[in-house]
Amino acid sequence: MGRSLPGTAQKQENPVTPAMEADRQHGQAKPTLQPLASLVRSDLDRVNRVIVERMKSPVALIPQLAGHLVSAGGKRLRPMLTLASARLCGYAGDRHIALAAAVEFIHTATLLHDDVVDDSDLRRGRDTANALWGNKPAVLVGDFLFSRSFELMVEDGSLRVLEILSRTASVIAEGEVLQLTTANDTGTTEAAYLDVIGAKTAALFAAASRLGAVLAERGAEQEEALDRFGRNLGLAYQLIDDMLDFSAQESELGKSVGDDFRDGKITLPVLIAFARADREERAFWRRTLEERDQAPEDLDRAILLLQRRGALAETLARARFYAGAAIDALACFADGAERRALAEAAAFATERAF
Amino acid sequence: MGRSLPGTAQKQENPVTPAMEADRQHGQAKPTLQPLASLVRSDLDRVNRVIVERMKSPVALIPQLAGHLVSAGGKRLRPMLTLASARLCGYAGDRHIALAAAVEFIHTATLLHDDVVDDSDLRRGRDTANALWGNKPAVLVGDFLFSRSFELMVEDGSLRVLEILSRTASVIAEGEVLQLTTANDTGTTEAAYLDVIGAKTAALFAAASRLGAVLAERGAEQEEALDRFGRNLGLAYQLIDDMLDFSAQESELGKSVGDDFRDGKITLPVLIAFARADREERAFWRRTLEERDQAPEDLDRAILLLQRRGALAETLARARFYAGAAIDALACFADGAERRALAEAAAFATERAF
Repeated sequence: MGRSLPGTAQKQENPVTPAMEADRQHGQAKPTLQPLASLVRSDLDRVNRVIVERMKSPVALIPQLAGHLVSAGGKRLRPMLTLASARLCGYAGDRHIALAAAVEFIHTATLLHDDVVDDSDLRRGRDTANALWGNKPAVLVGDFLFSRSFELMVEDGSLRVLEILSRTASVIAEGEVLQLTTANDTGTTEAAYLDVIGAKTAALFAAASRLGAVLAERGAEQEEALDRFGRNLGLAYQLIDDMLDFSAQESELGKSVGDDFRDGKITLPVLIAFARADREERAFWRRTLEERDQAPEDLDRAILLLQRRGALAETLARARFYAGAAIDALACFADGAERRALAEAAAFATERAF
Repeated sequence: MGRSLPGTAQKQENPVTPAMEADRQHGQAKPTLQPLASLVRSDLDRVNRVIVERMKSPVALIPQLAGHLVSAGGKRLRPMLTLASARLCGYAGDRHIALAAAVEFIHTATLLHDDVVDDSDLRRGRDTANALWGNKPAVLVGDFLFSRSFELMVEDGSLRVLEILSRTASVIAEGEVLQLTTANDTGTTEAAYLDVIGAKTAALFAAASRLGAVLAERGAEQEEALDRFGRNLGLAYQLIDDMLDFSAQESELGKSVGDDFRDGKITLPVLIAFARADREERAFWRRTLEERDQAPEDLDRAILLLQRRGALAETLARARFYAGAAIDALACFADGAERRALAEAAAFATERAF
């Protein structure tokens, strides 16, 4: 236990501190979502109005349940990407509003089904829809929002947009199923794990970002650049999510710390710690994640082992790599407020504590 | 108990016998699905190949689970409606094949989510996907099939078709949620119940039928006639489903008799029996369906009460009314093998025992 591995930092870590130190060293302010939020604020207000309008249904439970999740107020990161990428590409029309709402509906439908699948009871600091109303309406309202997102796209009338987002929806579902088959398996490879998060998370970030170039008809190169930006940002975002499941303050995270651990989810921090583990540690991971035999104190021990093996710091480093790749993907666009806001959003993704 | 209601047949009923007697009286053979099946057989083989091809995914669990349901072999009634209506309208192209597969994917996705929502363990005489693999993959593979259906529509490339089917998908989800809110409520009105089945079942029958006229560009009148045909057929079909839940032979039905009853589902037979019930019978329905307080012998008692109040015969009569309306809707089409096959399919809907 605790034997030193070559080339691996074994010191106790706090994943937030190094970044804060780096900021101090470089005399820079901590990156935030503010520039992106300011840039798209009035458009996002319009998106929110479309969301509220299109959640309506004569079946009262639908707006009640959907409204609970929507008003809980995620960061609206994915629609913001569509809005900002449209601006970055000089798009001057209105279509980005409804399409950003469609993107958020796909995301919200996925969240509803995720929470059912994971039996989660807390999301964004509030009870989940399935905890409040049960699994049945959560599944069915998810289906409704998903259908509604397609209605929005059909009204937009672009087969190209429909092609991108219907393909993305299939890929997300494939990623979610793939995640089920890797759950509880400490033998999952990092490559398989990256496939999972590439599909279940990064694909929608990529599509949401690509839409800006599609709307502005900027051609394949800029479409692909924005796709790459979104995809790498999505990977960074998910890795930080995985890290925060072990390292966040619950009050900031808005969900329960250790949810992934209790579900036996195999995430990158665990894969890294497992790869670097001694025999006793591997037995711990197998017992807790494969056999799902967990005692209340096991979460603390898991966090200790992740820190001992530098797994949280390593996850953060990987996330920063992807965030850097996202920023690099913006190189083909002219410097300006839009590009800087998107780049800062990517930098923020790895420094966030929630 | 057992008091006579004006204008209501109170004799013991067997819902199949009157139809068989009528057939004998008129010297007609019992209607079957055979003419419809023969008419579309080669097209349906092509649809089945598209279904198998498009269920494929690098994530092995997806074709495994979806294949279980698809190979269990429903009647493929909805895709057959698309194929036959296309023929009825003289459509000569190939687009009906992929669109019929898209219709079946929407239906299959709905079934997967339904079985999760209902906790069903038997469908079409086989274990349900959720019983075999658990709820999680059933939810997610449903999402995949639903996304895949939109990919098929996008490849077809008609915004009109996308509009019809995306709207239908929203309506189905609304109907399913509405059904949840009426479940266990014996105060549900018949109108509310017809809203539920109009949305959750008849809407897809209507859309599947309408597609034929859309593909053949036959104009609004024929589109609406086929929509009306499908919608009324769907209502008849669902009412018979509700009746068979109480009256079928389990070996023929392919699912458990009394599933709806055990779930506390409010269906038309129950609403009719409740409306005609005395105080003691109402107490029985409230205890078993609202309070879900059921003893093993209660299903037999429920069937007895339904028979005593003529509720199964009345449900059959209503189903025949809708089947008749479906057949009438075909009046604007020229007589011929296609129209006769569709009309016989509507007649079959109310005579089936499975």
